[in-house]
Amino acid sequence: MASTTTEADFAAWMGSIQGRVEETLKRCLPGPQHAPARLHEAMRYATLEGGKRVRPLLTFAAGELAGAEPGRLGIAAAAVELIHAYSLVHDDMPCMDDDVLRRGKPTVHVEYDEATALLVGDALQTLAFQLLAEQGGDAARQLEMVRTLASASGSRGMAGGQAIDLESTGKALSQTELEFMHVRKTGALIGAAVKLGALCTGPCPAALEQYARRIGLAFQVVDDVLDAEASTATLGKTAGKDSRQGKATYVQAMGASDARAFAEELRRQAHAALEGFGERALRLRQLADFIVLRKF
Amino acid sequence: MASTTTEADFAAWMGSIQGRVEETLKRCLPGPQHAPARLHEAMRYATLEGGKRVRPLLTFAAGELAGAEPGRLGIAAAAVELIHAYSLVHDDMPCMDDDVLRRGKPTVHVEYDEATALLVGDALQTLAFQLLAEQGGDAARQLEMVRTLASASGSRGMAGGQAIDLESTGKALSQTELEFMHVRKTGALIGAAVKLGALCTGPCPAALEQYARRIGLAFQVVDDVLDAEASTATLGKTAGKDSRQGKATYVQAMGASDARAFAEELRRQAHAALEGFGERALRLRQLADFIVLRKF
Repeated sequence: MASTTTEADFAAWMGSIQGRVEETLKRCLPGPQHAPARLHEAMRYATLEGGKRVRPLLTFAAGELAGAEPGRLGIAAAAVELIHAYSLVHDDMPCMDDDVLRRGKPTVHVEYDEATALLVGDALQTLAFQLLAEQGGDAARQLEMVRTLASASGSRGMAGGQAIDLESTGKALSQTELEFMHVRKTGALIGAAVKLGALCTGPCPAALEQYARRIGLAFQVVDDVLDAEASTATLGKTAGKDSRQGKATYVQAMGASDARAFAEELRRQAHAALEGFGERALRLRQLADFIVLRKF
Repeated sequence: MASTTTEADFAAWMGSIQGRVEETLKRCLPGPQHAPARLHEAMRYATLEGGKRVRPLLTFAAGELAGAEPGRLGIAAAAVELIHAYSLVHDDMPCMDDDVLRRGKPTVHVEYDEATALLVGDALQTLAFQLLAEQGGDAARQLEMVRTLASASGSRGMAGGQAIDLESTGKALSQTELEFMHVRKTGALIGAAVKLGALCTGPCPAALEQYARRIGLAFQVVDDVLDAEASTATLGKTAGKDSRQGKATYVQAMGASDARAFAEELRRQAHAALEGFGERALRLRQLADFIVLRKF
């Protein structure tokens, strides 16, 4: 009974944050009344009404822990989500993963065309930095947020992880090599999501960064397990793609059962990192559980 | 004689700034000793040893006029050039202009592959914002620079102009429609190059923004004329491409002779905007001449 109440409370919290993020994104993305209309429409198609918004949820949870103001958190969360959305649009293109389905809808290059998908990704990335730079308040703090998001997204972060992923296709990676790749490909932006939430009010505590590293990795391990075991309908994106494309995954490196156990261990470590925060870390603990125990 | 001395002096100034920008870019672009090596090598291939560096020259000329410090100008100029380089890499891709030659070398997707070209462009964009955010000094000023560069590059600036260009292919545009496109596609980033130079020390004077608008447009008009009249060897990129691809150009809209006259009129207006600055605007005047009178 207690557990059901907690779950319902978490679900309500998630729903309210997801709604707030959607509103912020809707307000910040230029509408089709601004030229070029088709590009702006495609940017909205790529970003709105989609996904679990895991990164924004982390930004809000970390920000709530740190005592940040919700309006400021909305912009930070939107900036992280725009970077995530841009990376999905580009990753789905024919020269990368060549995927036709994302969040249950045709991918941007299928719904529009490849050139538009390229420009959509480019412009979503730009908008992320623009939002952080246009936000009022303490300039040093906003600049630190730009720095954090850029270093997580660039060639030594997310884009670099993507490049390593491409190079590794068809090769068997060791667990260490896999971790090196995923710390960049997925972990860096998840870490930035947590850090930006804290930065909305002050410096990011080291324990939060540790938490972020654990769940960043856990997120990817679970992604690999789900790709191998879940269905396309459940995921809203093409399932079983990793093994067909010869991608290096945790399932391939250690087997599905050990991969699940590894994710569970990371969840435990993430909880441990939060110990000093007590009740203030409730949402972050729930998010660690959500990330590891999710079925989609 | 006086004119030859002036020309030699301008050439020497250009050479010294181009050298300084090359050094800054070399220092700021991660080397292949950092993973992923191939991505970092391709980022350097796309950016180093290439181009006239028109935008960095404008940043330095505007900064010198405003009394900015050279080290600070180097980072601002490098940031603008990284955005320009990213846009060239993506524009050359098969789904956009599908070009094989740039700055006299094979384009990035030809020398490497399409996926790498996509990631190179993405990561160069990120690095531009990272450089501005990592630069020390007054945070409010650095944040204003991020804002200026982002709004010039995004869907209502450069990327938007590119989208309009794609939509317009095969259509005849009026001069007003052409201007609407080029103010975004080329003008916005050239304007940002000038503005960032001034911002290195204080607010950008309105007259400088006016100057930037004129030469931004002049740059594109001359580009159209050169594409129609110059050779591939001279340009270091494929000539005659606009008419083969059915692109809307000033040559198509008004004829080569009227287009040349229009560029000349814009040069006159650019000079007029600088009148109040006297000798301090020498380099900006020379750059306006260089942009309009160039043969490549």
